[in-house]
Amino acid sequence: MALLPAPLEQLILGLERLPGIGPKTASRLAFYFLKAPEEYASDLAEALKAVKSGTAFCQTCFHIMDASRTECQICADEKRDKRTICVVEDSLDVLALEKTVGYFGQYHVLHGVLSPIEGIGPDDIRIYELEMRIKTEPVEEVIVATNPSMEGDATALYIRQRLEKYPVKLTRLARGLPVGGDLEYADQSTLLRALAGRQSL
Amino acid sequence: MALLPAPLEQLILGLERLPGIGPKTASRLAFYFLKAPEEYASDLAEALKAVKSGTAFCQTCFHIMDASRTECQICADEKRDKRTICVVEDSLDVLALEKTVGYFGQYHVLHGVLSPIEGIGPDDIRIYELEMRIKTEPVEEVIVATNPSMEGDATALYIRQRLEKYPVKLTRLARGLPVGGDLEYADQSTLLRALAGRQSL
Repeated sequence: MALLPAPLEQLILGLERLPGIGPKTASRLAFYFLKAPEEYASDLAEALKAVKSGTAFCQTCFHIMDASRTECQICADEKRDKRTICVVEDSLDVLALEKTVGYFGQYHVLHGVLSPIEGIGPDDIRIYELEMRIKTEPVEEVIVATNPSMEGDATALYIRQRLEKYPVKLTRLARGLPVGGDLEYADQSTLLRALAGRQSL
Repeated sequence: MALLPAPLEQLILGLERLPGIGPKTASRLAFYFLKAPEEYASDLAEALKAVKSGTAFCQTCFHIMDASRTECQICADEKRDKRTICVVEDSLDVLALEKTVGYFGQYHVLHGVLSPIEGIGPDDIRIYELEMRIKTEPVEEVIVATNPSMEGDATALYIRQRLEKYPVKLTRLARGLPVGGDLEYADQSTLLRALAGRQSL
């Protein structure tokens, strides 16, 4: 016997497909929609429908942008340093770096990392487009800012191999103890990296 | 400078309003929708819009049901014991109890608990309707199955005061160690309850 009405079941099943949302959370969210004002559910429904048609990817750096633009705000900004490209995995990484207010160059969003297990190869992410930018733009430095994970590191190595024939400086973000972190709780490999990268006081 | 396109910002803001979803999770979910097939977002949007119009509350027990029904499946089931009513906080509790396959009576969904801090009094939850059922239905036992929390306990006490003038047996779910739990990790009050409620071996 199905104990929940079909429209509610439908919503719970839809919410369960979201990453990090299990059956319990999906039920809780669905009931929240039931109790919330009608406008909330319908506004969110509209936002869901609009998100794909209203957005596009910048054809230079592949950062997400308003569909009405021809290039993203960062690429269009004449004041930004055209000689540096920071390579990131996705658009959220661009936001994180912009929040630091400490980087003024360009970006290049790969939209993924190399992952043989998931069948993601160099042609599935925006590496070819990165190479084309190195060839045609006045780039002097490429900062590879993929995540400090196994896949992120493999992707960084692959990018190095692919770009070392060009006259550009290739760098990678520093590894070490996170600010505010505790030496006692740092994992072994972070500590090893922090040791190896030690700087004069 | 807004770094995300407006339709995406809109979606993130909408998702952030959900209980238990913070700004980071909201961004992650919004980007998931961007990458997922178009049908997924539009199906979920439809489900969101349909959930309120497609569902209703049973006018006897207030459990959620399909809007096309006149009473819920449990109330409509002639085989269920009409002499017992189990009082719960919300419809998800009905599902949890039904999953035990160990209860065959009726339910009564309060849709909340008494909470002076949040300004929720007896008239804001379905207590009056419960009293009316005690008066008109052949009820012999009321099992108060509100959560074992401060509010749940206060609600149970209030229900006892309100119903003790009627010739019904009032019971509350047992407290004690959860099955599979560990004595060492049980909190003090659970352990005290388990001791007080000890049973002969």
